[in-house]
Amino acid sequence: MRTSFGSDNHSGVHPLVLKAIEEANDDYQLSYGEDEYSERAVDLFRSFFGPQTSVFFVFNGTGANVLCLQALTQPYHSVICARTAHINQDECGAPERFTGCKLIPVETKNGKLTPALVKPFLQGFGFQHHSQPKVISISQTTELGTVYTPEEITALADLAHRHQMYLHMDGSRLANAAAYLDLSLDSITVKAGVDALSFGGTKNGMLMGEAVVFFHPEQAENFMYIRKQSMQLFSKGRYVAAQYLAYLENDLWLDNARYANAMARYLAVETRDIPGVTITQKVESNAVFAIIPEKAREKLAEKHFFYTWDEATGEVRWMCSFNTRKSHIDAFVNDLKNTLL
Amino acid sequence: MRTSFGSDNHSGVHPLVLKAIEEANDDYQLSYGEDEYSERAVDLFRSFFGPQTSVFFVFNGTGANVLCLQALTQPYHSVICARTAHINQDECGAPERFTGCKLIPVETKNGKLTPALVKPFLQGFGFQHHSQPKVISISQTTELGTVYTPEEITALADLAHRHQMYLHMDGSRLANAAAYLDLSLDSITVKAGVDALSFGGTKNGMLMGEAVVFFHPEQAENFMYIRKQSMQLFSKGRYVAAQYLAYLENDLWLDNARYANAMARYLAVETRDIPGVTITQKVESNAVFAIIPEKAREKLAEKHFFYTWDEATGEVRWMCSFNTRKSHIDAFVNDLKNTLL
Amino acid sequence: MRTSFGSDNHSGVHPLVLKAIEEANDDYQLSYGEDEYSERAVDLFRSFFGPQTSVFFVFNGTGANVLCLQALTQPYHSVICARTAHINQDECGAPERFTGCKLIPVETKNGKLTPALVKPFLQGFGFQHHSQPKVISISQTTELGTVYTPEEITALADLAHRHQMYLHMDGSRLANAAAYLDLSLDSITVKAGVDALSFGGTKNGMLMGEAVVFFHPEQAENFMYIRKQSMQLFSKGRYVAAQYLAYLENDLWLDNARYANAMARYLAVETRDIPGVTITQKVESNAVFAIIPEKAREKLAEKHFFYTWDEATGEVRWMCSFNTRKSHIDAFVNDLKNTLL
Amino acid sequence: MRTSFGSDNHSGVHPLVLKAIEEANDDYQLSYGEDEYSERAVDLFRSFFGPQTSVFFVFNGTGANVLCLQALTQPYHSVICARTAHINQDECGAPERFTGCKLIPVETKNGKLTPALVKPFLQGFGFQHHSQPKVISISQTTELGTVYTPEEITALADLAHRHQMYLHMDGSRLANAAAYLDLSLDSITVKAGVDALSFGGTKNGMLMGEAVVFFHPEQAENFMYIRKQSMQLFSKGRYVAAQYLAYLENDLWLDNARYANAMARYLAVETRDIPGVTITQKVESNAVFAIIPEKAREKLAEKHFFYTWDEATGEVRWMCSFNTRKSHIDAFVNDLKNTLL
Repeated sequence: MRTSFGSDNHSGVHPLVLKAIEEANDDYQLSYGEDEYSERAVDLFRSFFGPQTSVFFVFNGTGANVLCLQALTQPYHSVICARTAHINQDECGAPERFTGCKLIPVETKNGKLTPALVKPFLQGFGFQHHSQPKVISISQTTELGTVYTPEEITALADLAHRHQMYLHMDGSRLANAAAYLDLSLDSITVKAGVDALSFGGTKNGMLMGEAVVFFHPEQAENFMYIRKQSMQLFSKGRYVAAQYLAYLENDLWLDNARYANAMARYLAVETRDIPGVTITQKVESNAVFAIIPEKAREKLAEKHFFYTWDEATGEVRWMCSFNTRKSHIDAFVNDLKNTLL
Repeated sequence: MRTSFGSDNHSGVHPLVLKAIEEANDDYQLSYGEDEYSERAVDLFRSFFGPQTSVFFVFNGTGANVLCLQALTQPYHSVICARTAHINQDECGAPERFTGCKLIPVETKNGKLTPALVKPFLQGFGFQHHSQPKVISISQTTELGTVYTPEEITALADLAHRHQMYLHMDGSRLANAAAYLDLSLDSITVKAGVDALSFGGTKNGMLMGEAVVFFHPEQAENFMYIRKQSMQLFSKGRYVAAQYLAYLENDLWLDNARYANAMARYLAVETRDIPGVTITQKVESNAVFAIIPEKAREKLAEKHFFYTWDEATGEVRWMCSFNTRKSHIDAFVNDLKNTLL
Repeated sequence: MRTSFGSDNHSGVHPLVLKAIEEANDDYQLSYGEDEYSERAVDLFRSFFGPQTSVFFVFNGTGANVLCLQALTQPYHSVICARTAHINQDECGAPERFTGCKLIPVETKNGKLTPALVKPFLQGFGFQHHSQPKVISISQTTELGTVYTPEEITALADLAHRHQMYLHMDGSRLANAAAYLDLSLDSITVKAGVDALSFGGTKNGMLMGEAVVFFHPEQAENFMYIRKQSMQLFSKGRYVAAQYLAYLENDLWLDNARYANAMARYLAVETRDIPGVTITQKVESNAVFAIIPEKAREKLAEKHFFYTWDEATGEVRWMCSFNTRKSHIDAFVNDLKNTLL
Repeated sequence: MRTSFGSDNHSGVHPLVLKAIEEANDDYQLSYGEDEYSERAVDLFRSFFGPQTSVFFVFNGTGANVLCLQALTQPYHSVICARTAHINQDECGAPERFTGCKLIPVETKNGKLTPALVKPFLQGFGFQHHSQPKVISISQTTELGTVYTPEEITALADLAHRHQMYLHMDGSRLANAAAYLDLSLDSITVKAGVDALSFGGTKNGMLMGEAVVFFHPEQAENFMYIRKQSMQLFSKGRYVAAQYLAYLENDLWLDNARYANAMARYLAVETRDIPGVTITQKVESNAVFAIIPEKAREKLAEKHFFYTWDEATGEVRWMCSFNTRKSHIDAFVNDLKNTLL
């Protein structure tokens, strides 16, 4: 197909991840997460996030998000998130359907919640007619490519905890955030006050698989039943665990994320001064958001795949990944320039 | 670990499947099932099941079963199945939770429903207090290793259709049934009257992935939303499609199933005359069910992994798979004999 | 219409209940259960069941049962009940739909569970593929008109508690059971080990309304949200509370139940020796179950309304209520005799 | 208690409604909606709304709304409504929990949706990641006491139908709207393009009960199962039907609504010129919204019950009903004036 800036999911699997899958293909292993690879992967997670951490592998990002929320809520609760959050916009209503909770979408400028934005929705506590606010959910990176600092996360965590609420993080691109901030994974999650984390690898070089990560042991207590009943239990579990082993060992997660971020910065730098192009969001990870004229959009799309993010404004999203080549960007920029002249 | 007769899930992935995954790892592909591999895989399914067939890939067997049922039912319906059915015994209540339907378990001797067994439960139609029967669900092979003939399937399909009901087949081991009967896949599904099929590959050499197969176009109409909302949409869809391509091309599915069945037959033949061993079910696929003395069970389990199926009777289940080696069986039989002498 | 032995729901409202509704119609009252009548009714319940009791009024029996179960379970749990239980047979799948739990139906001879019948289903604890047993649910009286003794209840409660499970009682006809046993309401509920109770009045002279009764304070903690979200919160709550005040004060509940039971006994005595009539269940409350010839059934139904309970055997159910008149029974018996001669 | 301007639910039952309940208390009637009163009530509804109308009685407004939506949607759909809508703000998440749908809240100035406000949310059709818009839901009167004209309703109905969507109306105060507009019930519902209606009586003099009203026969097809499974089937159905008979016969619904509206207008007229009082919404039904100083609010609340609608702005809501007495308003106005001097 055309070169794709459509999604970091349009890229394939990193060779080291594939190699790990092959190497796990040796002999009999118990299924359903009781294999040796899963045990090692859980230990590896604990070395990143601390010994209190519980880890459960699931199939995909929607599964990780919904199951995190299910473990934190009862159906009469509500979940506060940015209107642009993946759980609100891109999961076809899965969170409502499977948790029973109400989602409360909050308008933001850059995909990031702040205490000031959230506070007006922290109401109705103890009032039986009102869904009880229980979770603040943020995405790191956000769906607009922006990144929360640890201080920003802690401010939201403190707000949540003061109201006996939880802070959930959708970390499908957590690696990109850590790479941008040049901080460890725990410093922007458990140490910043996050209670439950969806930790993804698929968008950063894995074949499939997400991890539900809990930082309080009681959240994990009955979670294996939730996972199974929610159709998210992998039978040949070794093959997702092996991927995470490859991903987390030797900094593959970090290298891939750094590379993807660098490609997005390069793309932004190369395009931001082109007349007719307006970069609309800070480029803090592997996404570039820009407004370009409709005609340029159509012309460019003939040779390169990307998504229009907002039909009303003509805003587009260009994603880079661990295997976006610089030559692809150069060709893309060149074609963009040609369409605008 | 020990050699395992615990589950066909304890085996790894067939080399041709792994090779197909690697070969799909070439370049950009659209995600969420819009890639070229998925298109080819759907075509290949149609060559097996007919041009009216709709195919949707999902993550696992529970997902395939629950989503099939969801597409066929409204929450006020009921689903009739054998008490031993996977959907009733081994999915932690997922079907009830996600379809809202009542499951009506029917006692059987060998895991197989018959019209005579089902009829007493076809009642309460039009009575508002009663869950309305809508689906008969059968497993091919059954969870007890037995196999429905096409005629037996058609008899149940006719019964279902006379009551405006559907026949669903859990085909997580469909290949083993086709191999045993020496019949084509369509002759024991669509041509026998099955309306919706869960078609599995994981237990027969794939890494992961199941297919939801509908034989009436209207069932597929809005199914993509059901799949997405139910957390069963694969982002890098090419990697499950590529597996099915390898699995269905060149009869890999059939060769693997024939081999696994042959190993089970060999195991049964080698053990059935051992004093103290009683084979409890016909060996028609890749499972052997037997009763052995408790002491033998414990001793044997030290060197070989297998499950006790029924604690009350001491019945055990021994599963074979595409990579069960004859030497493993010989060692197992030898150890069994030694424990019984 | 014809005289009805179809259901205790076919009778109207006791005059004292109607009077209480009228008297509550005086002036402004807060809505949604915060009115003065509701407060007094809750106190009255506590005088019967003890000061630890929590009471929540809901609309109907299905609502009471489903909400009790919802308060006691998570969706990955299962509920064990008699196959004939109202929650299993007559609520169109509401328990599964709204709790997400699996119902496990147990065959019984007389509608009553026993520890011996339940034990085989107490399995799979800690096994992630299996719905986790959490509640034993019994009906007092049973749907077959039989009554549990306190000892029988305690035996089931002990069994449940030994497995960290709860005992739920569907008490839609609890008054009839207490009247039959000549025991207080608490002695066959909280003191016998019941954890949560659906306490009905509609079948015994009220206009509508059921009570969810919890015997452990923690069960009530967040129940007001469950009730509201489950569409079971009465806006003009005083009118259901006023009914319960009339019902529980001055032994109206007991007088009505005694009368209805007496009428059923009278009906049984008058019919049991008629050739062609076989009484099939012990008459311990206000129901008579009998088998009569099909022709007699049809003839009798022209003048009196009643339900055929089991089409296969021709078993019928004749219900009496607080306002079944002896003359109606005499006419009924007379007509029955005539059809059989 | 104090005189209450808190809710039209704080008033009691109109004497003619009570009388109808008593008169229905004559003898045996079939239960579960098969009684003679229910049949007559359905006919009476058809005389108001047309012969195509289907009517199902349920317990309360939340039940009516949720069940209407359930009949119109699949779980992967979304429902667009004003942020202030009862279904969004005051039902503790019941619509999400029981339909599985996403609610999309729209900001409005006066509680009324318009095509211009709705259109930006009509997006993502055919995109599998996005909840599919299926229902526009409006409240008549709105929760802010404002009223849609027939033309405004038709504009929204046309918009919905152009997108294969439905228009649902929450008519818990439909009578007040009809009274204000001086129009018939059908002219602001079925004739204006409404597809499904929740028609309430409790807030206007009934004891309890709401009606789910469908204007297309196919919506009613399997609705009896939905109602039963959703715990909204009344056993002694005659008593809700009898109330509706009294309510709809002889214009009781209209007289009550006119009176309540007149009282609200009187209250508005008497207070609007008091210094310190700002009426914030047009008074088009039985509600007055106003901002008064916090101190006045507290003082006034000692003698009269009412709710603060918006803690941030100090806005209060004063509701009138069929039995609000003019003398109560005079005393209220007098007390308000005193607190402000």
